Amino acid sequence: MPANAVPDHPAATAPVSVPEGAFVEVCEVGPRDGFQIERAFIPTKEKIAIANALAKAGIKKIQATSFVSPRAVPQLADAEDVLAGIERTPGLVLTALVPNARGAERAARTQVDVMGLFCSASETHSRKNVNASIDETLARFPPVVEIATAAGKRVQGGVATVFGCPFEGEVDPQAVVRIARFYRDLGIVDLNLGDTTGMATPRTVRAVLAALREAVPEMKPTLHFHNTRGVGLANVMVGLAEGVTRYDSSVGGLGGCPFAAGATGNICTEDLVYLLHETGYETGIDLDALIAAAERTERAIGRELPGQVMKAGPRFARHSVDDVATAAG
Amino acid sequence: MPANAVPDHPAATAPVSVPEGAFVEVCEVGPRDGFQIERAFIPTKEKIAIANALAKAGIKKIQATSFVSPRAVPQLADAEDVLAGIERTPGLVLTALVPNARGAERAARTQVDVMGLFCSASETHSRKNVNASIDETLARFPPVVEIATAAGKRVQGGVATVFGCPFEGEVDPQAVVRIARFYRDLGIVDLNLGDTTGMATPRTVRAVLAALREAVPEMKPTLHFHNTRGVGLANVMVGLAEGVTRYDSSVGGLGGCPFAAGATGNICTEDLVYLLHETGYETGIDLDALIAAAERTERAIGRELPGQVMKAGPRFARHSVDDVATAAG
Repeated sequence: MPANAVPDHPAATAPVSVPEGAFVEVCEVGPRDGFQIERAFIPTKEKIAIANALAKAGIKKIQATSFVSPRAVPQLADAEDVLAGIERTPGLVLTALVPNARGAERAARTQVDVMGLFCSASETHSRKNVNASIDETLARFPPVVEIATAAGKRVQGGVATVFGCPFEGEVDPQAVVRIARFYRDLGIVDLNLGDTTGMATPRTVRAVLAALREAVPEMKPTLHFHNTRGVGLANVMVGLAEGVTRYDSSVGGLGGCPFAAGATGNICTEDLVYLLHETGYETGIDLDALIAAAERTERAIGRELPGQVMKAGPRFARHSVDDVATAAG
Repeated sequence: MPANAVPDHPAATAPVSVPEGAFVEVCEVGPRDGFQIERAFIPTKEKIAIANALAKAGIKKIQATSFVSPRAVPQLADAEDVLAGIERTPGLVLTALVPNARGAERAARTQVDVMGLFCSASETHSRKNVNASIDETLARFPPVVEIATAAGKRVQGGVATVFGCPFEGEVDPQAVVRIARFYRDLGIVDLNLGDTTGMATPRTVRAVLAALREAVPEMKPTLHFHNTRGVGLANVMVGLAEGVTRYDSSVGGLGGCPFAAGATGNICTEDLVYLLHETGYETGIDLDALIAAAERTERAIGRELPGQVMKAGPRFARHSVDDVATAAG
């Protein structure tokens, strides 16, 4: 590189030469993280149709709903019915959030494959979100693991506000490590790292992953980024370079942020899949079918979704020379 | 990293350990690339006020306008007046696009510092955009360099459709190299790589930069990404890892794509600056003042701009515990 360039860096944060056949798992969380924030109740039939369209597009993991109290999150009060309606395509894994034993008992009677626990790494956010301290929250989890195991379900351990807390500011990676260790000691391998309010940055992603590699190298991280500040996919590039191959996203970029009117929600599934394919990864997902599912979701929601690829089309959506007006520059 | 991880990669594509004080130059192109696509004419006074607000926020390079035919781009017919109105903060560099000798003669009489040439790397796009072949376009440039040199102005060489053409599809990096060599032989050092319709991807960014490093290592590249498909800032991470330290962006994410209704324009300046700061780079820009300039631009345009940081605020826009409704998960 010419003058003015930054000197060489000691390590990779995004993949340069992706090995042939390298696979990234995309977990669709829109039906939970997206629908829960909508004002209008999305009809159960429509939720099921969207999940089925996503599965048919090749998505292999869908977070379909949440077994929280229907009073706290009325939009997901139809958890059992949604799960009952989803057709099982080969290899499809269905997950749902489960906050406590009561939720686990409900989930155990459904076709859900994975129960997702979640605990905030910030004390203030924890109290605000589930009205309990971190320790009180963690104490609810051993019975969930027992119920899940008895029902033949797997358990995933989630951490919220991993990359920052809107109330407390910076979150110490050791607060994340502490919760991860608790999960590991319960026999949990899958660790979901939630960027709950879109505060993740390249620096914080690297710091958290380094702390976890050191403390709980046996756990498999999934990165759950929000695009609240526009840098969600830049963070994915950092995650990929750090070797993380599992990402959560929402169809159409469904969702939002309770802290910022107009801010977007999760990173968008189609945009993520487009980026992954164009970086050299395989996902098993058909981008055109995924875009069709996003369009269906947009119709169901009744407002424009922030996804970009659904508007512009894939890279080779070619145009006729007669198509467009001249625009110099 | 645990099982399921991609093996280590041989080289960096995003900076892991950014050297202390590493600086990235952000060039604001909204006043040209953004305003030119607006339907309504933005009042000259407002254009000047926005440019001045951007300069006061610490932006050191502004592409203020374009000396194309006022018939082709009526929105920028006030090029001379806009340039006359911008206050020169210390170190501020003003640039403008100049398609030919006639434009250069106009630009020479203004306080512009840099004349920006541009030529498409795609034959079809070139004919569509400036009604001339690539060779015909390049033939117009030597007189521009003469006029600029006589007037004491610098010249920057721009290439359009570097990362793909909406008509022709993939663009051969050697087509970019050919134009870069032409610029170099005219004594031009600054090379602007335009992602005209948002087709850049990590793969194409790396391929083009590698070809240019090989052919014209003495030239200094600027990456000009559009966020048409949502991956603009992911491409910046790749550029940073490849050692490129100069990026174009537009305030608020101003602009659009003539090929896709609803698609966004350039990468957003505030979101880029936020990402750079949070990756460890210095820009000399005050993010809060930049957000204020974006809000002013949004009012001038009269519609919501796609920028995210202007909606969500910087990372530590903290909230009171009483601020928000509980949202589980």
